[in-house]
Amino acid sequence: MRDYTIERFLDELSSKAAVPGGGGASALAGALGAALGNMVCYLTIGKKKYADVEAEVLEICEKGEDLRMKLTELVEEDAVAFEPLSKAYGLPKNTDEEKAYRDEVMEKALLAAGNVPLTICRTVCEVIDLLDRLADIGSRLAISDVGCAALFCKTALQGGALNVKINTKLMKDRDVAEEMDTELVKLLGEYAPKAESIYERVMGSL
Amino acid sequence: MRDYTIERFLDELSSKAAVPGGGGASALAGALGAALGNMVCYLTIGKKKYADVEAEVLEICEKGEDLRMKLTELVEEDAVAFEPLSKAYGLPKNTDEEKAYRDEVMEKALLAAGNVPLTICRTVCEVIDLLDRLADIGSRLAISDVGCAALFCKTALQGGALNVKINTKLMKDRDVAEEMDTELVKLLGEYAPKAESIYERVMGSL
Repeated sequence: MRDYTIERFLDELSSKAAVPGGGGASALAGALGAALGNMVCYLTIGKKKYADVEAEVLEICEKGEDLRMKLTELVEEDAVAFEPLSKAYGLPKNTDEEKAYRDEVMEKALLAAGNVPLTICRTVCEVIDLLDRLADIGSRLAISDVGCAALFCKTALQGGALNVKINTKLMKDRDVAEEMDTELVKLLGEYAPKAESIYERVMGSL
Repeated sequence: MRDYTIERFLDELSSKAAVPGGGGASALAGALGAALGNMVCYLTIGKKKYADVEAEVLEICEKGEDLRMKLTELVEEDAVAFEPLSKAYGLPKNTDEEKAYRDEVMEKALLAAGNVPLTICRTVCEVIDLLDRLADIGSRLAISDVGCAALFCKTALQGGALNVKINTKLMKDRDVAEEMDTELVKLLGEYAPKAESIYERVMGSL
């Protein structure tokens, strides 16, 4: 999907085709947030005024590039994980045997489809940590872009969370589902306010 | 830029090239939000269960498509408006004459560069109004996507706002700058909580 044009991605997102959907869009939001963070790094690196922090900004930039690549891959992975679930919904459920088979296939598909957005959430929290530091040491000329980056990451985190929950709520294995939900609540509780506070700090400085 | 692949857009966003930046990314977030809303419309239209609301969903869908097109165009418009500002920063300021000329060019460029994200904000608020209704009447199967759509629109609104402010704060014509800021505060005050409440309602239902 990274080879789709922006227009094609938007067209397919808006269509009723199974993918891309909210999960893939959330991964893309994370990649956009990481990319904006990297832009601020590149606008900081090499400037005399920021020579003192250059080594640290270079490190943030390298980590940010890796995370952007991972989030771009997750756009695709979300589509791959969602297709089987989309097919499982269509399985027949007329006999007990059919129902049992459908339940089994559904359970596996739900777990796979929930795990990708959970990975999106985990990954984007790492970007938020980088942005939190970049808001302090990155070039002042590009400070609004750090704020924008944090907004995109927050959307990726909360959007990913919606896509975990819509799967875990249907899972029969409540132990696994609750383990996933618990991790999610922890990530949301720590990182949504962290992203929001980066935005607020930036907005307050303008 | 709608013809850029996702990968190219991300590459150029992360580079230190003047555009795309936070403004264009915000317009894209709005287009993604509108597209997700449209997907929910298409998953609702034609279903017996939702026959009662079909006419209204069709109307939301049509408006949503128009707004998505407008937001996609705003990605490009933001780039077009930002280029002259980027060039104005580079104008010489050694003599009084050079300074006066630079100030004049800067003022015009700041106004143009601030007006596009203000239009992004206005446009995405219209999408938020559509999503607010869609959260009530859209297909329950795609409800998480309405929540995601609202998150994208909130990011577009707040990201657009950062990009208005970074320009208005440098404008010399304080009357015009304050008029723009006042409209912004009004939009943010009404629509950021509205988008957040759509997300909360959806998350609470999962």
